[in-house]
Amino acid sequence: MKRISILGSTGSIGTQTLDVVAMHPEAFEVDGLAAGSNTALLLEQVRRFNPRRVSVSTPELAAEIRSSLPAGVELYSGNEGLVEIAAGGDAETVVTALVGSVGLQSTLAAIEAGRHIGLANKETLVTAGHLVTELAGRKGVKLLPVDSEHSAIFQCLNGENREDVASITITASGGSFRDYSRGQLENVSIEDALRHPNWSMGAKITIDSATMVNKGLEVIEAHHLFALPYEQINVLLHPESIIHSFVEFRDSSVIAQLGTPDMRVPIQYALTYPDRWQSPAERLSLAKAASLNFREMDYVRYPALKMAIDSGKLGGTAPTAFNAANEVAVARFLRGEISFLRIEEIIDEVLQRHENAAHPNLEQIQHCDTVTRELAAVL
Amino acid sequence: MKRISILGSTGSIGTQTLDVVAMHPEAFEVDGLAAGSNTALLLEQVRRFNPRRVSVSTPELAAEIRSSLPAGVELYSGNEGLVEIAAGGDAETVVTALVGSVGLQSTLAAIEAGRHIGLANKETLVTAGHLVTELAGRKGVKLLPVDSEHSAIFQCLNGENREDVASITITASGGSFRDYSRGQLENVSIEDALRHPNWSMGAKITIDSATMVNKGLEVIEAHHLFALPYEQINVLLHPESIIHSFVEFRDSSVIAQLGTPDMRVPIQYALTYPDRWQSPAERLSLAKAASLNFREMDYVRYPALKMAIDSGKLGGTAPTAFNAANEVAVARFLRGEISFLRIEEIIDEVLQRHENAAHPNLEQIQHCDTVTRELAAVL
Repeated sequence: MKRISILGSTGSIGTQTLDVVAMHPEAFEVDGLAAGSNTALLLEQVRRFNPRRVSVSTPELAAEIRSSLPAGVELYSGNEGLVEIAAGGDAETVVTALVGSVGLQSTLAAIEAGRHIGLANKETLVTAGHLVTELAGRKGVKLLPVDSEHSAIFQCLNGENREDVASITITASGGSFRDYSRGQLENVSIEDALRHPNWSMGAKITIDSATMVNKGLEVIEAHHLFALPYEQINVLLHPESIIHSFVEFRDSSVIAQLGTPDMRVPIQYALTYPDRWQSPAERLSLAKAASLNFREMDYVRYPALKMAIDSGKLGGTAPTAFNAANEVAVARFLRGEISFLRIEEIIDEVLQRHENAAHPNLEQIQHCDTVTRELAAVL
Repeated sequence: MKRISILGSTGSIGTQTLDVVAMHPEAFEVDGLAAGSNTALLLEQVRRFNPRRVSVSTPELAAEIRSSLPAGVELYSGNEGLVEIAAGGDAETVVTALVGSVGLQSTLAAIEAGRHIGLANKETLVTAGHLVTELAGRKGVKLLPVDSEHSAIFQCLNGENREDVASITITASGGSFRDYSRGQLENVSIEDALRHPNWSMGAKITIDSATMVNKGLEVIEAHHLFALPYEQINVLLHPESIIHSFVEFRDSSVIAQLGTPDMRVPIQYALTYPDRWQSPAERLSLAKAASLNFREMDYVRYPALKMAIDSGKLGGTAPTAFNAANEVAVARFLRGEISFLRIEEIIDEVLQRHENAAHPNLEQIQHCDTVTRELAAVL
C-alpha cells in the first residue's frame, strides 16, 4: 500500500490524481486531502476515498462541512490546515497540486517531514528552487515531477549519468493563439484564450500556455529540478504535444518521452516511480498521428518566455516577482479587467521596477510576492 | 584503456568502428583486426591502429601481406583466423561486423571466451539466437547492439524494468523504393536499388532495406536480444529515420531514441555503455527536420517482411533458411543475374520447400545454411 496525500484535491491535477488512485484501489491509500472552497466535490472525494484527514481554505468552510464528514475524519483549515495535510499523518508521497505561490510553505513542510513530493505546483521551484532542492537533498526526499514536460525529462534520464547530459529541450504546443500574429492578439477574448488545442487544464495554466509564461516557469523549474544551467535548457515549438520533452546526451543521442495528452500518466509515474503500472490512458499511435511538427521558438512572438528565462538567470527574487506579476495579471485578465496583451506589459513593468535580492530566504520571497502582487494589481 | 577487436574491420561498420577508436585514442586500444580480402585497407589500418593480431580470408592473402606487417604482429587466415581474432588475445569487447552467416562461429567463440560483443552481424541472432543468448547468459557476456534500431531500443530500456515493457517498435525508412508501387518494382536497376534515402551502408544491407528483408531480420534479432514474443514487436514506416526505434511501456508512456543517421553513435555506445562519450556526430535539430512522418507498415507492399516474421515465429532452422535464401538471391541480383522482385520469389520458394528442424544445434544450422544456399543458387 502506498499512502498518499493531495494538496489541492479538487483541482485539475488533484482530481486526476484521485482517478489514478481509483484505477489501483488495491495499491493506494489516501491519507489526507486539502481542498480550497469546492466543498461539494471534497465531500464526494471523502466518501469515495476515505481519507483520515481533510482541510479546506477557511474556518467558515470547515464549520459548514463538519457535520457531513464521517466520524473520525480530522478536519483542518487555512494555511495551517495545508501544512497539517502536507506534514502530519503518514503519507509516503504528497502530491502538491495547488495552483500559485500558496503551495510553497506546505511543500517545504512536507519535505521537512520527509515525504516524497509529487510536484505539480510550479511556483515551489520557481520562487524557492534553491531552498527546496537544498532541503530535499538534505532530507533525502525525492522531487517527482508531475508536469508532463518534467516527467518526460525525468523519464529520459532513467539509467543515465547526469554528466553525460548535453542539453534538455522542453516542447511547447504554442497555446491557444499559436497561429495568431502579435497584431491579432490585440482583441482576443477570455473564451478564445481558454481554448487550449491539446490539453484540458485549469484556466490559469491555459492562459499561461497562451502567453508562453507556462513554458518560462517550466524552464525555471527544470533548471532547479535537473540542476542544469539555463544555457543547457531549450524550448521547441511542437504543435502536437506528442513528444513531451527530450534530453540530448553528449554522444549526440537523443532520448524522448512521447504519449497522448493524458496527465494521468505522469501523475501515476510520480506515484509508482521507478516502476510503471498499467494505465487506461489511450495508447499513442504514431501512424494515426501521421506527422509530428517542430519549429524554433520565437522569442519575439512570445516575449513573456524571454522575460521568464531572464528572471531565472538573474535569480534571487526575480522569478518570484515574475511569477507574482503574472498570477495577478492573469487573474485580472480572467475577470475582464485587462486585455490579453496587457498581461505581458504588467509583468514587464513589474520586472523593470523590481529590486532583486540574491539568495533570498522564505520571508524575503514571501515579502517580494506580497509587494509584487500589490503593485501588479494597480498597474 | 578499453581493448577491442573487430571482425570485419574493412567493411562499413568496421571502418566506422575504427573512426570511433580514432576519436578517443587515449581510451581505446585495438587488439585484433580481421578483414576479408581488402588487404590494402587492412594494412593502412594496421599502420594507424597498431593491432597485435590480424587475419585475412585466405592463406594466399596472408602470404601476400606478411612482409608488409610490422614486426611482432601475429597473422592468421581463414575461418580459424576469424576465431583466433574473436577468442584469442585479450580484447574486452569484440565488434562482430562481418556481413552474412560467416559471422556466427566466430561470435560464438568470442562469447565462449568471455568477450562482450558489439553485435553488428545480424545473422548471429537470426540463425542461432537461441544458442547465442543462452551462451551469453551463461558466460555473463553482454550483447551490445550496434544496429541503430536495436541500439535505440537498448537505450530506451535503460533504467527500466523489463516486465513494464508493453511493446517495442522498430522504425523503417522504407528503403530506396519506398515511393514505388509493386508494379513499378518490375524493372528497377541495381543502381536504383543501391540508392538508400537516409543511410550510407554496404550494398547487401541497402538491398535488404529496399526489400524490407533487413527489417525482418531486425525483428528476429529483437525477439532474441530483448526476449520478447513477436506479438510485442511492431514495425512502423518512418521515412526520415530520425526516431531510430522506441519502446512503449505498460503505463502507455513511450520512450524513443532519436538522432541524425550516423552509425558512429550506436557503435560508440556499444563500446562505452553504460557511459556516453563525446561524439562529433551532427547534432539533431528537430526544428531543422521540421516534420517527422509515420505510416503503418504495408505487409502487402513488402511481402519479404512478412516472410521473415513468419519464419521467426516458426523458429528452428526457418530463419536460417530465410536468411541464406536472401543472401544468395541478393548476391545474384547484384551480379545482374535476377530481377529485384525475383529476390522475394526465391525466398518464398525456399521457405515453401524448407523442412524445419526445431531447436537446431550449430551443425544443423550450418547444414541448413549450406543446402539452402545450393538451392537458392539454382532457383
